Amino acid sequence: MSATDTQFQPASMADRASAQAIGYLMQQGIENADCLSLAAGFVDPETLPVELVRQTTAELMSASAGKSTLQYGTTPGSDSLREVFRNYLAELEGDSNHRTSLSLDRIVLTTGSQQLLLLVSQALFNPGDICLVAAPTYFVYLGVLDGVGANAIPVTTDENGMCPDALDAELQRLSDEGQLHRVKLVYVVSYHDNPAGISVSAERRPRLLDVVRKWSDSQHVFLLEDAAYRELHYDGPVLPSIFSYDQQHDDDRQHVILSQTFSKSFSPGLRVGVSVLPQQLIKPVFDLKCNEDFGSGHFSQNVVASVLQSGAYRQHVSRLQQSYKGKRDAMLAAADQFFSDVPGVSWLHPNGGLYVWMTLPDHVPTGFDSDLFKRATHTDKVMYVPGELCYPSDWNQRPRNQMRLSYGVLDNDGIREGIQRLASAVRAVV
Amino acid sequence: MSATDTQFQPASMADRASAQAIGYLMQQGIENADCLSLAAGFVDPETLPVELVRQTTAELMSASAGKSTLQYGTTPGSDSLREVFRNYLAELEGDSNHRTSLSLDRIVLTTGSQQLLLLVSQALFNPGDICLVAAPTYFVYLGVLDGVGANAIPVTTDENGMCPDALDAELQRLSDEGQLHRVKLVYVVSYHDNPAGISVSAERRPRLLDVVRKWSDSQHVFLLEDAAYRELHYDGPVLPSIFSYDQQHDDDRQHVILSQTFSKSFSPGLRVGVSVLPQQLIKPVFDLKCNEDFGSGHFSQNVVASVLQSGAYRQHVSRLQQSYKGKRDAMLAAADQFFSDVPGVSWLHPNGGLYVWMTLPDHVPTGFDSDLFKRATHTDKVMYVPGELCYPSDWNQRPRNQMRLSYGVLDNDGIREGIQRLASAVRAVV
Repeated sequence: MSATDTQFQPASMADRASAQAIGYLMQQGIENADCLSLAAGFVDPETLPVELVRQTTAELMSASAGKSTLQYGTTPGSDSLREVFRNYLAELEGDSNHRTSLSLDRIVLTTGSQQLLLLVSQALFNPGDICLVAAPTYFVYLGVLDGVGANAIPVTTDENGMCPDALDAELQRLSDEGQLHRVKLVYVVSYHDNPAGISVSAERRPRLLDVVRKWSDSQHVFLLEDAAYRELHYDGPVLPSIFSYDQQHDDDRQHVILSQTFSKSFSPGLRVGVSVLPQQLIKPVFDLKCNEDFGSGHFSQNVVASVLQSGAYRQHVSRLQQSYKGKRDAMLAAADQFFSDVPGVSWLHPNGGLYVWMTLPDHVPTGFDSDLFKRATHTDKVMYVPGELCYPSDWNQRPRNQMRLSYGVLDNDGIREGIQRLASAVRAVV
Repeated sequence: MSATDTQFQPASMADRASAQAIGYLMQQGIENADCLSLAAGFVDPETLPVELVRQTTAELMSASAGKSTLQYGTTPGSDSLREVFRNYLAELEGDSNHRTSLSLDRIVLTTGSQQLLLLVSQALFNPGDICLVAAPTYFVYLGVLDGVGANAIPVTTDENGMCPDALDAELQRLSDEGQLHRVKLVYVVSYHDNPAGISVSAERRPRLLDVVRKWSDSQHVFLLEDAAYRELHYDGPVLPSIFSYDQQHDDDRQHVILSQTFSKSFSPGLRVGVSVLPQQLIKPVFDLKCNEDFGSGHFSQNVVASVLQSGAYRQHVSRLQQSYKGKRDAMLAAADQFFSDVPGVSWLHPNGGLYVWMTLPDHVPTGFDSDLFKRATHTDKVMYVPGELCYPSDWNQRPRNQMRLSYGVLDNDGIREGIQRLASAVRAVV
């Protein structure tokens, strides 16, 4: 055999997927294992429902239905969970009519909500197509868009979420440039978003949908509402989903994909995401999922169905909200204490979710190669997520001076200590 | 809004995925729910490890490690399961040296082995690339190849599995036609295959690898060894994997992807597949999996790790082998009884797996549109998988007169009754 035997070039899909930042971030986490992590997006280990999963499994495995939970399910997932979720969603929306009006066929269970984000993207985007995203947005989704060869275009976003007027203006610009036919999706994390803890305001929710509908002319534009943090709500008004405004429309006029998950509110180790698809996306998403795995874990789905049915899930979420609220308060208090006298530093006050979004003075970059990141990880032993990851990497106006700080994993003392260390690093480089 | 608002064209990936036959087959199963099913690829419900999962979960949730099983894992999956599988694989190969020589980095846990089949295909194939497959082969994998736009080319296969000489000749032909650079993979179900129950013989295992290595010149050709049915072994010699012959080579000379699963041998509802990747495929497969779900169910993985570690898994597999052996014998006995006087009908005698492969006279087609399929499902109330699904759909020489008969789900009486009904349908149309 020749010396060229070793040549191997991955296919273009794998090549594009290699741009995913989370892999690099996880590697940083491993290399800096001695740091306090304000970076990890993991949930609080203390509140994981160990006893509830033990009890529920014992009950499931004693009942006559136990065997069916260990058998293959179907591609869309457990009927029990899809049915009980339909009722639960009606509760969340404060509208009991959902119970009867939402077809079960539109509900799909996935391996976390991450799989749904990918399947929808594979169903919608050919390479070169366009996705409009909030700025900042969930950086893992930017990697998914890279993976399918789609272009992410940032839309102006403030403390009330993505601006409908800015979205409209961006679509007008793309239309003027003859690019409207390539726009397939608008991506919004609607509740307490990752990374900034921002929720789309009540007033903007129907308006974002109106803009999407306005520009769905020759081309159907969808809106992916990622509601992963919906249930991690600690104070402020309880908002209906953007999806709820889409419900009044006929089958072929549906635009919103609603994506939720039990990872944040119950257990990420079970990997159960649940989504509602517009009628037109059911077949393409199911076709893709069939090739992928013909159904996610049936056993885990049935564990979730049981706790959701029994009411134990709601009690768990309620305890979780109390616990995370305390952790959020601990982080905000620590930020007040350690950062208030550092000039030019500001941060948002989230009503839910897992993250505080902090902005440093313009001249203080936070990226992996920055002095701050090196100082923080090597000297002060604290890690954060550089904010620039949360903007399209080819956007030359992206801010370089922000940080995502998570209060998910650490306890209150750890959060305080982490913020203190971070302040020390910031003072050193400012 | 205009009347064209409803226009939506799925992206090409979704469009290609729509060719998957299993969706249609599952639909047939639903529409013919009153039939005895010799079609379903489900496992025996009676032997599902309900009590073992209850016990194991109770233990996991009592231990200090309980919480970590409910937390996110990593993209490659639980370290515990990957480590204990490495030892178990050494046992299976009868070679204790594997324990030390196989790098843990090469082991990946997926959502069943199906996800691995897709990830490897996405890592290897650009549209128009070529995969050589046994004929017949696992029809779901043909759908995966369609999904990534790869062309499946059948290689002559007999009762000893894919013929190395035929593989060599096919590669020579492709080389002569200037198509060798498009050949990325050879796909073989090496143990008790789906659909025909055939195992690649001891003598052919190293020879298939030799052919693959011979033709890996300017282009690295991989061999995907799908060993899903490896542990469902009832009699005959215990064979080492094709993978084991690849182990002596350096990192950059590895060719075999070994894919196994706990779906058949333990529980498909847990959705835990496990595979060993050649060094060169680790990064592309992990990149793709990171975009897909950044890790399959961590909880399920830890349940499997526990039973594999404790030895309970081996006891379970042993009981399973006894049970399935009885069911296989029941199907072969029923075939003898009800088919031996039907001229031109023959069937293979599998040493393991879940399937008996039956061939009818040439002039008796078995497809969904055939008289036999209609007669069987409508009159005799029995369903099977048409054999033609198990060949590339664009291969005009594919046999049309075969059937895959599963003894997985039905009990012995059901198997006997199903075969009797099928014989009645066959007699009616012959």
